[in-house]
Amino acid sequence: MSILVVGSLAFDNIETPFGRSDDTLGGSSTYIALSTSYFSDDIRLVGVVGSDFGDEHFQLLRQNGIDTKGIQVVDDGKTFRWAGRYHYDMNTRDTLDTQLNVFADFDPHIPAEYREARYVCLGNIDPELQLKVLDQISKPDLVICDTMNFWIEGKPEALKKTLEQVDIFILNDSEARLLSGDPNLVKSARIIRNMGPKTLIIKKGEHGALLFTDEGIFAAPAYPLESIYDPTGAGDTFAGGFLGHLARCEEINESELRKAVLYGSAMASFCVEKFGTEKLAGLDLLEIEDRYQSFLDLSRIAD
Amino acid sequence: MSILVVGSLAFDNIETPFGRSDDTLGGSSTYIALSTSYFSDDIRLVGVVGSDFGDEHFQLLRQNGIDTKGIQVVDDGKTFRWAGRYHYDMNTRDTLDTQLNVFADFDPHIPAEYREARYVCLGNIDPELQLKVLDQISKPDLVICDTMNFWIEGKPEALKKTLEQVDIFILNDSEARLLSGDPNLVKSARIIRNMGPKTLIIKKGEHGALLFTDEGIFAAPAYPLESIYDPTGAGDTFAGGFLGHLARCEEINESELRKAVLYGSAMASFCVEKFGTEKLAGLDLLEIEDRYQSFLDLSRIAD
Repeated sequence: MSILVVGSLAFDNIETPFGRSDDTLGGSSTYIALSTSYFSDDIRLVGVVGSDFGDEHFQLLRQNGIDTKGIQVVDDGKTFRWAGRYHYDMNTRDTLDTQLNVFADFDPHIPAEYREARYVCLGNIDPELQLKVLDQISKPDLVICDTMNFWIEGKPEALKKTLEQVDIFILNDSEARLLSGDPNLVKSARIIRNMGPKTLIIKKGEHGALLFTDEGIFAAPAYPLESIYDPTGAGDTFAGGFLGHLARCEEINESELRKAVLYGSAMASFCVEKFGTEKLAGLDLLEIEDRYQSFLDLSRIAD
Repeated sequence: MSILVVGSLAFDNIETPFGRSDDTLGGSSTYIALSTSYFSDDIRLVGVVGSDFGDEHFQLLRQNGIDTKGIQVVDDGKTFRWAGRYHYDMNTRDTLDTQLNVFADFDPHIPAEYREARYVCLGNIDPELQLKVLDQISKPDLVICDTMNFWIEGKPEALKKTLEQVDIFILNDSEARLLSGDPNLVKSARIIRNMGPKTLIIKKGEHGALLFTDEGIFAAPAYPLESIYDPTGAGDTFAGGFLGHLARCEEINESELRKAVLYGSAMASFCVEKFGTEKLAGLDLLEIEDRYQSFLDLSRIAD
């Protein structure tokens, strides 16, 4: 199944109680694409970087089977940079620095050979850009979309227009409350699903995720990890694993959607075990299946 | 299976964003016993009340099959009173008033006919009193214990002595972090289980509960309710449903422990739907089974 991923590519400086990591490859589309790459061999990435984005980064993406022809390189430009520090409990973080650089003028151009992709994943970028992406592509089978507080508050109208064309929307609990205006997640889900996306995933960080569809609610637990080194990119990695499992299904039904949530959760649980994309870039299929099985075991009743 | 429940009986004044309820029957042992009463017909309650604890309250307990002979009535004394106000998100509350009254001098006396109870549930009271209870009873098959921040901080040594005799310990996530000194719940669980209780349940409020045993971790979701009117007593109600299911099992194994966590969760989900014990006192077995089934459905993968 062909997959188009559009989002940011970045270098991150990350501090956590366990250490720090500088100039780490990051960005929403990087995490999504790497995570999806374990499930699909046709991933087409669209984003923008500066001339400081070295060959080794392109190589890392290509080694994971990701088509990088859609990455625009701005000569003499600098890649998007983000710096953040996580608190002791790892649930909250302070942004120390944001340098949009070439990302400030990002105008997503979808190459002709990318436009027939059947699944489209809109990473967390300006909803006006998400709309521009949707305008350029042929009617895809599935549109998945992520967003963040910044766009919900700053571009609510553009976001709502995007959502009319979205099949599966992924956001976290505080974002869901903000977008819906309701503190109750069940009510929030109904309000947001009425905006367009028939399928909604509300991520709750260390507390797992909720899937809302016409058929009901599915509650996925989070994997109780002993050590979380760096939560950066966990949400994007979740989206990538979720999308990846759907891409290999012959038919998307309630059962496959629920499995996809667990695969997304499994991928996110790997992501946080090392800094940046370090763990995510070097997994094998067997350990992914093992972790998926651990997620099943977490909710299993009978022996 | 005979069950001894020891804890507080109280009158609560509760304010939530949905309204208020005054002089509502409450207290840890009230919620535990009412919740357990749907699963067992041999519940023996030990607590203390004042002369203001009217016949209608004794009747309510007895109508639910609870033996109230162990409730000490202090003539001219006043029953324990608590007043609290929940915030908009229902996750946090302010205690407005606490009047210990007769509870301040509570010296639990276990009647002779109660001492052979096979299961003992120590509600959230001073751990020194919990020890006094354990000193009076014959070797029970199972000791379940609850506590709170107040005792973890105020009586850590007594609590640790109690825990050496406890089989199943129930507390919430912030209490687990406080008692263990570790922010990670997996590590917290190991530290606390080393204090005595082989089985540990960490409640996470609206995010469900985690069960830790020698066989692994079970993650129970919370029921995503549209309307939560009053969270008071939800934790005690959970303990009661959990205990209740175990009491009707021929053998306690991992599978039954996991089911018990879901029954506890189901009972707690009813508790919060109305003020105080209103909902809890008038359930029927069919709706409890229905809610239990809904909890299974929340984690179900295959159709």
